[in-house]
Amino acid sequence: MIPQLALVPGEPSGIGPELCIRLAQQPRSDCRLLAFADPETLRAAATALDLPLQLLPEQAQASRPGDLRLREIRNAAPSQFGHADPRNARAVIDALLGAGQACLDGTLDGVVTGPVHKAVINQGGIAYSGTTELLAHQAGVEVVMMLANDIVRVALATTHLPLRQVADAITAQNLRKVITTAHAALRRDFGLPRPRIAVLGLNPHAGENGHLGHEEIEVMIPLLEQLRGEGLDLIGPLPADTAFLPAKLAGFDTVLAMYHDQGLPVLKYSGFEQATNITLGLPYPRVAVDHGTALDLAGKGVADPSSLFAATALCARLAAQRKIAR
Amino acid sequence: MIPQLALVPGEPSGIGPELCIRLAQQPRSDCRLLAFADPETLRAAATALDLPLQLLPEQAQASRPGDLRLREIRNAAPSQFGHADPRNARAVIDALLGAGQACLDGTLDGVVTGPVHKAVINQGGIAYSGTTELLAHQAGVEVVMMLANDIVRVALATTHLPLRQVADAITAQNLRKVITTAHAALRRDFGLPRPRIAVLGLNPHAGENGHLGHEEIEVMIPLLEQLRGEGLDLIGPLPADTAFLPAKLAGFDTVLAMYHDQGLPVLKYSGFEQATNITLGLPYPRVAVDHGTALDLAGKGVADPSSLFAATALCARLAAQRKIAR
Repeated sequence: MIPQLALVPGEPSGIGPELCIRLAQQPRSDCRLLAFADPETLRAAATALDLPLQLLPEQAQASRPGDLRLREIRNAAPSQFGHADPRNARAVIDALLGAGQACLDGTLDGVVTGPVHKAVINQGGIAYSGTTELLAHQAGVEVVMMLANDIVRVALATTHLPLRQVADAITAQNLRKVITTAHAALRRDFGLPRPRIAVLGLNPHAGENGHLGHEEIEVMIPLLEQLRGEGLDLIGPLPADTAFLPAKLAGFDTVLAMYHDQGLPVLKYSGFEQATNITLGLPYPRVAVDHGTALDLAGKGVADPSSLFAATALCARLAAQRKIAR
Repeated sequence: MIPQLALVPGEPSGIGPELCIRLAQQPRSDCRLLAFADPETLRAAATALDLPLQLLPEQAQASRPGDLRLREIRNAAPSQFGHADPRNARAVIDALLGAGQACLDGTLDGVVTGPVHKAVINQGGIAYSGTTELLAHQAGVEVVMMLANDIVRVALATTHLPLRQVADAITAQNLRKVITTAHAALRRDFGLPRPRIAVLGLNPHAGENGHLGHEEIEVMIPLLEQLRGEGLDLIGPLPADTAFLPAKLAGFDTVLAMYHDQGLPVLKYSGFEQATNITLGLPYPRVAVDHGTALDLAGKGVADPSSLFAATALCARLAAQRKIAR
């Protein structure tokens, strides 16, 4: 059975809709896509890009370039490229929640999401800190954010936290949850029977035997030892500066960084366009683009669809892997 | 006048001596090298690598492959590759200080250093936290560490500090000193009349308007504004994860990272072998290798000399630039 994926464009005035139109031009044999979106927004994007678009009912079969099956989530206000309207925040969130619910219900097998504009959603009166958090809350689970391109996968122990708060957030309890969540997802979704996770130290040089910080000795090393005893294949804590050397990366399935700016600069440097954002730990695979709404580019036809293409292909692969595993 | 550079191998039982022997095989027109080292250690390295070595007096002219002018700094104990001996700590430090003093006296124009083994020096009874600090103390100045390869230059606002202490170390006073030191050195040594420095935010997304930390708003943005008013060309505070995208890097002369693991993973990923460590702010140029003593490789002839070669070429260029500027 071919995986059925939800496709959510995200902010209607950004580049998300036109990236979905580009995606709908591609022949696909790895999944069937169902857009959760406003039909007028999609039509406007197709017109702006001068590309064909046929919106189809959910039961239809997409066969021609521009065919896109649609579950309508109507915007409250007409949307205009480049001008985000907080009145449409509800529709953006409803599309995301509708896609998530369809996966929780078992009618769909995964979710691919475009970029959402955090500030506009909040201006629209909806407390929103990110789609990852939204879908985790809906599913009632704890998740781990992982970013990946063809070179490296980087999972994060903490994400959008002021640097000052990072050290205190690296407790044995938190880190155990992150590592076991990432480990289970790499097994189930990525089909890695015994994933090798390289854990970066919190401090420079991974603390250099306590000379540059004590968290490795007091928290990390004992926890990793415990988890190894439970059968996990963990490397580290490793000094972050040399852990990404290409020869070393070849030996890991993923790198677990302790915080945002320790892990993501290399990920983005080594291949930003193809990078995707994967939520580990949900009951279904969810992959997002690794870029923003780019309001200034919207409707101009110049936005690079590589990240959405990569996210869709990866989500299809992960969903197929889950179906095999079931 | 061709620059006269001190060459200090560093730990005698590590790979430093053999890298110097390899360097001495190369014809050079960019500088004259004077080794500050133990002659027996250098001879042992040449023998181990089966390479020619003629140690010459300081006044001599090096002309053949293997010619190396020497200022003798005798080890206290015979040195053996792979086995560091704390009794030789004094000789390692004396070589570094002798090289620094020769530059302070004006008889030499720059210092190139190999790797030093921090723990062995301390075991030898000498408090030592790094060659950068040693030479800064000798010269009575404050310095900034910068690492560079052909892709990117990364200066560090803080270096070997536990992550927990980083946020408090980013004060306006400290950051002003770091930025002005880096700026002056980029002008004087790198010949950049108006260096563009990209300053990374302390927090993820550079604080995202205060949602992810306040140091950008409270400390960094006002300071950068002040320094711009004084004529400095500063960009930022920038989100660290996207600052290293190749298209962006092209617009900066250097990136100033707030801490070790924010700046160095990309630097090492993008070209570890050729990476060098430059001390900004000394009265003379000093460039070091960006790798350790590699005791396990010493004497085997397999150590990659690329970093020492790059360090020497860069130090020669910086010293020549200073001579022009004088």
